[in-house]
Amino acid sequence: MKTYTNVKDLGNLQDAIKEALEIKKNRYAYKNIGENKTLLMVFFNSSLRTRLSTQKAGMNLGMNTMVLDINQGAWKLETERGVIMDGDKPEHILEAIPVMGCYCDVIGVRAFANFESKEFDYQETIINQFIQYSGKPVFSMEAATGHPLQAFADLITIEEYKKTPRPKVVLTWAPHPRALPQAVPNSFADFMNEADVDFVITHPHGYELAEKFVRGAKVEYDQMKAFEGADFIYAKNWAAYQDPNYGKILSTDRSWTVSERQMAVTNNAHFMHCLPVRRNMIVTDEVIESPQSIVIPEAANREISAQVVIKRLLENL
Amino acid sequence: MKTYTNVKDLGNLQDAIKEALEIKKNRYAYKNIGENKTLLMVFFNSSLRTRLSTQKAGMNLGMNTMVLDINQGAWKLETERGVIMDGDKPEHILEAIPVMGCYCDVIGVRAFANFESKEFDYQETIINQFIQYSGKPVFSMEAATGHPLQAFADLITIEEYKKTPRPKVVLTWAPHPRALPQAVPNSFADFMNEADVDFVITHPHGYELAEKFVRGAKVEYDQMKAFEGADFIYAKNWAAYQDPNYGKILSTDRSWTVSERQMAVTNNAHFMHCLPVRRNMIVTDEVIESPQSIVIPEAANREISAQVVIKRLLENL
Amino acid sequence: MKTYTNVKDLGNLQDAIKEALEIKKNRYAYKNIGENKTLLMVFFNSSLRTRLSTQKAGMNLGMNTMVLDINQGAWKLETERGVIMDGDKPEHILEAIPVMGCYCDVIGVRAFANFESKEFDYQETIINQFIQYSGKPVFSMEAATGHPLQAFADLITIEEYKKTPRPKVVLTWAPHPRALPQAVPNSFADFMNEADVDFVITHPHGYELAEKFVRGAKVEYDQMKAFEGADFIYAKNWAAYQDPNYGKILSTDRSWTVSERQMAVTNNAHFMHCLPVRRNMIVTDEVIESPQSIVIPEAANREISAQVVIKRLLENL
Repeated sequence: MKTYTNVKDLGNLQDAIKEALEIKKNRYAYKNIGENKTLLMVFFNSSLRTRLSTQKAGMNLGMNTMVLDINQGAWKLETERGVIMDGDKPEHILEAIPVMGCYCDVIGVRAFANFESKEFDYQETIINQFIQYSGKPVFSMEAATGHPLQAFADLITIEEYKKTPRPKVVLTWAPHPRALPQAVPNSFADFMNEADVDFVITHPHGYELAEKFVRGAKVEYDQMKAFEGADFIYAKNWAAYQDPNYGKILSTDRSWTVSERQMAVTNNAHFMHCLPVRRNMIVTDEVIESPQSIVIPEAANREISAQVVIKRLLENL
Repeated sequence: MKTYTNVKDLGNLQDAIKEALEIKKNRYAYKNIGENKTLLMVFFNSSLRTRLSTQKAGMNLGMNTMVLDINQGAWKLETERGVIMDGDKPEHILEAIPVMGCYCDVIGVRAFANFESKEFDYQETIINQFIQYSGKPVFSMEAATGHPLQAFADLITIEEYKKTPRPKVVLTWAPHPRALPQAVPNSFADFMNEADVDFVITHPHGYELAEKFVRGAKVEYDQMKAFEGADFIYAKNWAAYQDPNYGKILSTDRSWTVSERQMAVTNNAHFMHCLPVRRNMIVTDEVIESPQSIVIPEAANREISAQVVIKRLLENL
Repeated sequence: MKTYTNVKDLGNLQDAIKEALEIKKNRYAYKNIGENKTLLMVFFNSSLRTRLSTQKAGMNLGMNTMVLDINQGAWKLETERGVIMDGDKPEHILEAIPVMGCYCDVIGVRAFANFESKEFDYQETIINQFIQYSGKPVFSMEAATGHPLQAFADLITIEEYKKTPRPKVVLTWAPHPRALPQAVPNSFADFMNEADVDFVITHPHGYELAEKFVRGAKVEYDQMKAFEGADFIYAKNWAAYQDPNYGKILSTDRSWTVSERQMAVTNNAHFMHCLPVRRNMIVTDEVIESPQSIVIPEAANREISAQVVIKRLLENL
């Protein structure tokens, strides 16, 4: 593996899950792989879970780790040629990124969608610049359109908790006060479409995700109908993707908040969310505190998904 | 030891001091204890001494260390159930804290008193949430009402510098331009009350500390009288604790500044302060620069107190 | 070596270069030297290259590393005696610096010139306080008047790319929209004056550097003439040093921007710059992207120069 931005990079998913579960049993078994290797984590946006879990994954593998916080989301690097750089951008990507690549062996990058340009976001401009110019293996710690470490952790969690060989998994939109990127639902769909699950997406009209990620997945606009017989409910808010509403909030309808009412029609489904979660917007206290809620073990698996990814990048050096 | 917030957690104090002095002789002797163990340090307030000394203590024990700075004192986590989280708090403690616990083996927490609510401060709301919800051993890196790593370092220092079996130790209030928490004097009293010392507290009227920490200690309102024959002078400012003045500055009387005038009536006492110290407010240049000043070795012992505490938490895993 | 602030600290330069090239071949060969040793990196100014390369150098040597960011350039420590510290400075250097020294074995310090006082800057007040009061070996990670890790990396790079025993090396001023310190050109001159090179400095009138660094070096005000037959072009902006213009921008003349026009008269010179570089101010896209540009390997050598310096400081403990 040379980069990690989507499900395809993992190759055979069953092998990846198997590797993850094996690492989880003994996460210090591969400390020699990372010896004398350095993980650089570059954050253009703040982070709690991703930062801690990815750093720990690198340390589990025996790596040295360095964290670089870049002006909270302000991408101040010039990307064009020919510009007379006399403004607020002190450096060009063609220098900045290769230099970061000089001081490490593997680079993780977090750079959210900024909703200023759908084209800029969906071309994954920033992480692709790292892939193109750093000279080192790059993995996504949540980019503009995907969060594949999260989706891989989700898949591992579903594997651990499923009670049937082919569980029904429902991705449901839920309300939120702020306009959020589509990275998490995109990657979740990307993974579920390749996994051995019965995958359904439900959301209000206007919240259709990009075809690149939805592919042939079933979309059901009636949330109650979608939940019927579900084994896993995966809740998440996202802002609209479709033009002309890209990045906009179209609904704050709290009837979409996941509550006992909807959970009652499932097959005693497990509740999942990538966290952080706004209670009583995304999900009620009752549901997230119920025994069926697996949000904490799901978060714990972020360490495992990161470790599989970094291990594979190291093995390919 | 499962948590560390006060003197009682150390058990037998003589044993703890003995362990500290042994570690100080060879601080790398226990590197195997922390192998494959991760220390997470969570800072709600900024830190210099505590951050460096605690991180070094963890590394001395062979641990991996991670530092998490949370928005400079702004506790933005929802703590109530039933709240519709559509405001400025993006996450609930019931998710945030268990997740932090997932990625580490031991957690240190710094969260100062904010003086907005005496009840919130003196119930030690924040660190107790970590103790209750993280699932991991938690130690205080200065909480609202105590700074037990400092007080333990103070005790070690007194042990090293004392010239009599039962020295006289005086905790004296001194003026300061800002309203400071009672954490340091509280913990110092907590420790001195259990140590084999003759303990006296002196401060202007109105600066009485909480009975929980003062216990039976002698309080002498005449600073000169308190200093007579003292072997150690421990200076510190704090804001008022007693109602209705909680968190207020009642005095900036610079006659309380520790100077050669007061030191002259002591038994050639050593001068101590937890640092940072404002010169010529808390203490004069002459006193803090005198051979009797032991503020630097006192600070150096912060590494040792932290190492004993983390070592014991690791041994109990 | 006990401190590292200028070329003299390296002793014999040929030996230093030899040691650097040897380390570059196997940068993990000395991991035992740094075992149980801690590197503290103190930043008063932000950093990308220096932070990553120096931290990596410490880790290459097996050290534990700690990074301390101090209020972005605001030197808030009291330096005078006798001051009643009731203002915005919470701590005195005489306490703060020795305490930092307690928790580490080697200290790197970054503290730029602030252009408020030429005397304060050129006395190297801040880094000298660390040298005087920390009790530990101190090295510059760019101080007010010098950036010796950069200059040493530059020298290593010249050694690697030179095609003649005594190459002609030209330091040229180039325009920039902001007033920049003289640290980089000062140290470059400091090193080139001791190296086996034909060294020429070129800049507009009024940009003369301090005699302490220029020493006997040839200064040529005609940039084209200076470039004739050059083997290495080292571009950099700096603000005026000479009174009464200290810290001022005297020229933004873009005819000084290094372009193919000037490079054409060189001996197919290599282009160097310490980065970050503003394209089409300092240098054109064409020149910095040409095969003769060695800015990336030059940056990569920052890890090597830092490792030699830290290794020598450790060996002298």
